[in-house]
Amino acid sequence: MSAMLLHLASYAPNARVVTMFLHEKALELPLREITHGQNREPAFVRMNPMGQIPVLEFPDGFCLSENVAICEYLEAQNPDPPLIGADDRERAETRMWARRLDLNICEHLANITRFGLAEDYFRSHILVVPEIIPGLAAMVEDRLRWLDLQMGDGRTFVCGERFTLADILLFCFLDFADTRVKPVEPGLTRVTGWLERVRARPSAVATRPRYPDQAAS
Amino acid sequence: MSAMLLHLASYAPNARVVTMFLHEKALELPLREITHGQNREPAFVRMNPMGQIPVLEFPDGFCLSENVAICEYLEAQNPDPPLIGADDRERAETRMWARRLDLNICEHLANITRFGLAEDYFRSHILVVPEIIPGLAAMVEDRLRWLDLQMGDGRTFVCGERFTLADILLFCFLDFADTRVKPVEPGLTRVTGWLERVRARPSAVATRPRYPDQAAS
Repeated sequence: MSAMLLHLASYAPNARVVTMFLHEKALELPLREITHGQNREPAFVRMNPMGQIPVLEFPDGFCLSENVAICEYLEAQNPDPPLIGADDRERAETRMWARRLDLNICEHLANITRFGLAEDYFRSHILVVPEIIPGLAAMVEDRLRWLDLQMGDGRTFVCGERFTLADILLFCFLDFADTRVKPVEPGLTRVTGWLERVRARPSAVATRPRYPDQAAS
Repeated sequence: MSAMLLHLASYAPNARVVTMFLHEKALELPLREITHGQNREPAFVRMNPMGQIPVLEFPDGFCLSENVAICEYLEAQNPDPPLIGADDRERAETRMWARRLDLNICEHLANITRFGLAEDYFRSHILVVPEIIPGLAAMVEDRLRWLDLQMGDGRTFVCGERFTLADILLFCFLDFADTRVKPVEPGLTRVTGWLERVRARPSAVATRPRYPDQAAS
């Protein structure tokens, strides 16, 4: 593990998914902080042709990107404590929830940021379509209301009593959106309760982002 | 396996991902065809609160949805031939590509269909935002051009020489879009070549969809 290198911008939700996952596993990896724009330069794009962080670089040069794929690899190599699952059925349930949240909430929140708050940066690197932000935001609100209903059975975490990758994934994006874009509707009390519960975890505190535009504090 | 039941609408890309995966594995599962709208009725929503097919129902009542999660479970229980991977590194690479394609192409194509071609059906069941179709279509075109560039290294499949879940996922959605929504730009010769290569596989032929609005032939 220690011969690997994790390239990231530590304040970005996509990177925080991995650092929070590592913290929950009590694992450490050498980190390389990527500066604004460096991830679009040829040296980086050779590692990830999507130009996105995080990237896990292996000693032989193999490079793995996509937060969920990196976490799956880390869990396969370090099964305890299980954050995806201890058996095939648990892993299946976590992956089901992670994909639901990824497709219906997290990626929409990421695109709302890419085309909105961070448009000035992204415009020079990727296709941005700011005109779809209201539609994406409506979908996120609709899905958060749906999630709030699902959590009406009193579950502590997304998959019930297990804290999993699905929680980490949703948390990193929703914490970002709640803090920087638009607070979660207060009426969604199960979602906001869950958000506060996860925020209190040592892994969330340890990976709390400091944004480049924030004064050091 | 045989005590399980796979609920699906066999013509839908999301379901075809699983049936094509099963065919490549030479596995069979009892299938239950869900009729139009049945997936929004209480009996179905109890199995998947998203109201979406496919759903894999276990003998004890546990229900697993989300195509990728179902395929992961099937592979864990039936490792050969590997369609995700034979080791942690191969699995990592497949998951990286599957997520890239899912977030950047497949889910956009699914939403373009939900809000467009199939809007009359979906409007009564989910939030539809037809106004974002042009933006989603622009993103898909952009990402297909990107994929075509990536395949310029002569690879046979998305992950190189291995045929994987990433190919199946992309194929089911792109075959649908190419046939029913908008043909893939002919200039993207690596993508169209790949599409024809996958189309010729017995698993693709065996799962070729017959749409409800097509006359029996």
